[in-house]
Amino acid sequence: MFMRNSWYVAAWANEVEGDVLLSRKILGDQVVLFRQQNGIAAALIDRCSHRFAPLSMGRREGDCIRCMYHGLVFAADGKCVEEPGRPRPSPQTSIRSYPLVERYKQLWIWMGDVALADPALIPDCHWQDDPAWRSIPAYIHYNADYRLIMDNQLDFSHLSFVHEGTLGGSKRIAETKPKVEVIDGNLRLTRWYLNEPEIAPYLKGVVNLQGPIDRWHIYDWSIAGNVLNMDSGSAPAGTGAPQGHRVAEALQFHATQCTTPEDETHSHFFWTYAHNFNLEDGAFTRALADRIQIGFDEDRRTIEAQQKVVNMSGNDKMAYIYVDAALTQGRRLLEARIAAEQSAACGSA
Amino acid sequence: MFMRNSWYVAAWANEVEGDVLLSRKILGDQVVLFRQQNGIAAALIDRCSHRFAPLSMGRREGDCIRCMYHGLVFAADGKCVEEPGRPRPSPQTSIRSYPLVERYKQLWIWMGDVALADPALIPDCHWQDDPAWRSIPAYIHYNADYRLIMDNQLDFSHLSFVHEGTLGGSKRIAETKPKVEVIDGNLRLTRWYLNEPEIAPYLKGVVNLQGPIDRWHIYDWSIAGNVLNMDSGSAPAGTGAPQGHRVAEALQFHATQCTTPEDETHSHFFWTYAHNFNLEDGAFTRALADRIQIGFDEDRRTIEAQQKVVNMSGNDKMAYIYVDAALTQGRRLLEARIAAEQSAACGSA
Amino acid sequence: MFMRNSWYVAAWANEVEGDVLLSRKILGDQVVLFRQQNGIAAALIDRCSHRFAPLSMGRREGDCIRCMYHGLVFAADGKCVEEPGRPRPSPQTSIRSYPLVERYKQLWIWMGDVALADPALIPDCHWQDDPAWRSIPAYIHYNADYRLIMDNQLDFSHLSFVHEGTLGGSKRIAETKPKVEVIDGNLRLTRWYLNEPEIAPYLKGVVNLQGPIDRWHIYDWSIAGNVLNMDSGSAPAGTGAPQGHRVAEALQFHATQCTTPEDETHSHFFWTYAHNFNLEDGAFTRALADRIQIGFDEDRRTIEAQQKVVNMSGNDKMAYIYVDAALTQGRRLLEARIAAEQSAACGSA
Repeated sequence: MFMRNSWYVAAWANEVEGDVLLSRKILGDQVVLFRQQNGIAAALIDRCSHRFAPLSMGRREGDCIRCMYHGLVFAADGKCVEEPGRPRPSPQTSIRSYPLVERYKQLWIWMGDVALADPALIPDCHWQDDPAWRSIPAYIHYNADYRLIMDNQLDFSHLSFVHEGTLGGSKRIAETKPKVEVIDGNLRLTRWYLNEPEIAPYLKGVVNLQGPIDRWHIYDWSIAGNVLNMDSGSAPAGTGAPQGHRVAEALQFHATQCTTPEDETHSHFFWTYAHNFNLEDGAFTRALADRIQIGFDEDRRTIEAQQKVVNMSGNDKMAYIYVDAALTQGRRLLEARIAAEQSAACGSA
Repeated sequence: MFMRNSWYVAAWANEVEGDVLLSRKILGDQVVLFRQQNGIAAALIDRCSHRFAPLSMGRREGDCIRCMYHGLVFAADGKCVEEPGRPRPSPQTSIRSYPLVERYKQLWIWMGDVALADPALIPDCHWQDDPAWRSIPAYIHYNADYRLIMDNQLDFSHLSFVHEGTLGGSKRIAETKPKVEVIDGNLRLTRWYLNEPEIAPYLKGVVNLQGPIDRWHIYDWSIAGNVLNMDSGSAPAGTGAPQGHRVAEALQFHATQCTTPEDETHSHFFWTYAHNFNLEDGAFTRALADRIQIGFDEDRRTIEAQQKVVNMSGNDKMAYIYVDAALTQGRRLLEARIAAEQSAACGSA
Repeated sequence: MFMRNSWYVAAWANEVEGDVLLSRKILGDQVVLFRQQNGIAAALIDRCSHRFAPLSMGRREGDCIRCMYHGLVFAADGKCVEEPGRPRPSPQTSIRSYPLVERYKQLWIWMGDVALADPALIPDCHWQDDPAWRSIPAYIHYNADYRLIMDNQLDFSHLSFVHEGTLGGSKRIAETKPKVEVIDGNLRLTRWYLNEPEIAPYLKGVVNLQGPIDRWHIYDWSIAGNVLNMDSGSAPAGTGAPQGHRVAEALQFHATQCTTPEDETHSHFFWTYAHNFNLEDGAFTRALADRIQIGFDEDRRTIEAQQKVVNMSGNDKMAYIYVDAALTQGRRLLEARIAAEQSAACGSA
């Protein structure tokens, strides 16, 4: 079950260049992404209306895609503009198009009611293209339900175990209870680990900060689009970071993670890990991304293994525990949004 | 849903030689093909009556197959003729045999009511073993419903797109409406493209005919057995080909394509592409077949991709368009035959 | 459908050493096997109670397993002994443990009602660790229902066909009717082949016994646990083997085969083939096992092929024949045990 009235990241903008016809399954629909001559990207169902050949096996022609089975041509709005053998295409040959907006180096798609597709609803992810920050667009394919990824993001206790030697560090992290706030129907989590003896393992050898440090994870999780934006970092202990004062030696990061359901048990995961220092040092940006990638692979292996067990577990119930506060609230907010969307759809029918 | 009272090609005759036990799924039944000592081929269900071991893992012994699990022996008519430990086999050990006829270098099988299996119903495909023609037996396995292949055969508009650089040529082909006739419950399609500037791409470098040419596709499509027989060719323009006069420079071909359902979503495709000139030039026969193979691979890739989309499309309806006249008639004739067969089966039950 | 109140072999003891967390599916349940510090092995469901991560991706810590997703720790009895962030774990975090007994170099598991798990019910397989015998622990994974393997074991007629050049020999074996006895709800089969011209093919080149010989297969088949114990061998003809007198030249073997259902269509097969001569000759033990392995691969290929045909055969009935007496009795005893177990479970509910 998906929230359909929501913007989701469909692709990195640079995945769709030139004549590329990118086929991707999103919320169970197979979609083809392409660019018009003016550079504006568009999304159509990846299925010719005529005999169901995939349009992504076709050919970009100007602002359109030609199906290379029988030659029908479709514009970015889904209208069939050429039907071989007939002067004007018949109306039933048109196909579904999806609202698509390019923002923050990403193509955001709307899979639900077109009337509600307001671009102002796209969550702020400006750190991805703000010149004050640097990051590298990255993608992970998950053989897992997007909600298991969301659980993982809303729980920081796993850092001590899944990421013991990478993103985590001391066991205190697992035991530190976050402050959880609901803001405009979304979640904000705040965790501070004061006076930690040293920086996280993944930063060692990449940066020079010595302990003791004050470390933080503060993030906003948008239910719509499954978008996480995290302010995290480490500062010399006692230099006022918790009070908002960040000294020059402080290391500040901004992580953006957008999870788009592919179908019920597979997901797309688009991420960046931006830094606002060493801006001219491309090798540093790359090294940082590589370290984070190792940690995210640890998550993926764990979550994909979890999905397999879930598949075998029928209706057995998971045991909620002390550290699940944010996860539980996230699930409830999501379920409420989906329920509201479905009852609205019934009411309007 | 298949028409069962029909001859289908089960195999090329030369696939079943010597002690070969060829296992092949046909209309959902797993069948084993073998030859008796007199060379006559036979077809049995590929399943021992005793413990369901596949007979194709057994051994040809004289005119019989011995199951190599517990040693039962079956004759070509399905009768169990040896049951270890018992002087005479018990009757319930016999298995199903299928009528099988060798003709046109092919083994034709009858999967339905044995009482109706009249070899006179096998469509004429004599070009495959007529000394006036030359061709090479070929086979393609399809991950697709046989009806999607039939659609492809009954539609020539795709030549301009799928086969743009091979079997097709000018866009006029997609726009030329065929003459469609129903003859004895089957279809005849006729298309003439007069005064084309040049021969089809696949013939370039293989033959010497220069344009302008008159080009034609005339084919009979037998609903029973999904058999297409096509007279096609190219002649110097204005030399009377449409009136039946074929000058010495004319290039005449005869294509035979037999599609046998493997199951609901997989098919066997047996084909030849015969020519009646250059008869002693084996390299020409080979080169011609290689060129056609390239075109048929284009079809296969398109149709298999289409099948995947069909699998995801539930009950969504395809949009029939102008060029679908023959395809639509073919589907209707097929459905009527299947419905008639099923109502006859109910009446006799 | 499985008999759950029964000991089954879960693993060879040496598969679970040191920090190994062995995950194996047994009777449809995914189980993790590990050893405590005192060396005693234990079995838990391979699923953390919290978020269903597999415990086998965790870490052995002392006598426990720590889930490496969120850090819960489980003891050998399934009790959760550590829940990060909480002084004492909540009770609903405990998980299922399974009775496990180490015997005969094997770990025997009980998947049913714990109250009935009496180790005295483990069938005698002492030949596997008796110093008077030598054998090598071996394992085969089967893509087949355990009952098809049981059928194979209860039928010796297949030796002449499946194992014509290995374990079998003359066709008389297929035709020799066994003596079948039901003893305490289990089966004993006895077959003697007197005055055979020579030893079985698999023994040629490995032992020196010349024909004629008296050969035998006497085995006890335990319905519980699907355990076969076979006394087999060959002695110089007429030296009194059938009367129990085994001369020094006689070759005596003891085969133990334990089949554990993985799920409805897959099985674990644990086997040894012990000899009580050449005890100090490790190369002989290895050569003998290698020869038997060839024969068992023949079985596996046949049975896996049979399973595929069974999968396609719906409710079609197999034809029982003369040689199936033991097989039929075995199936009936098994079905009666399963039915009794299920009606007892209903009565107690």
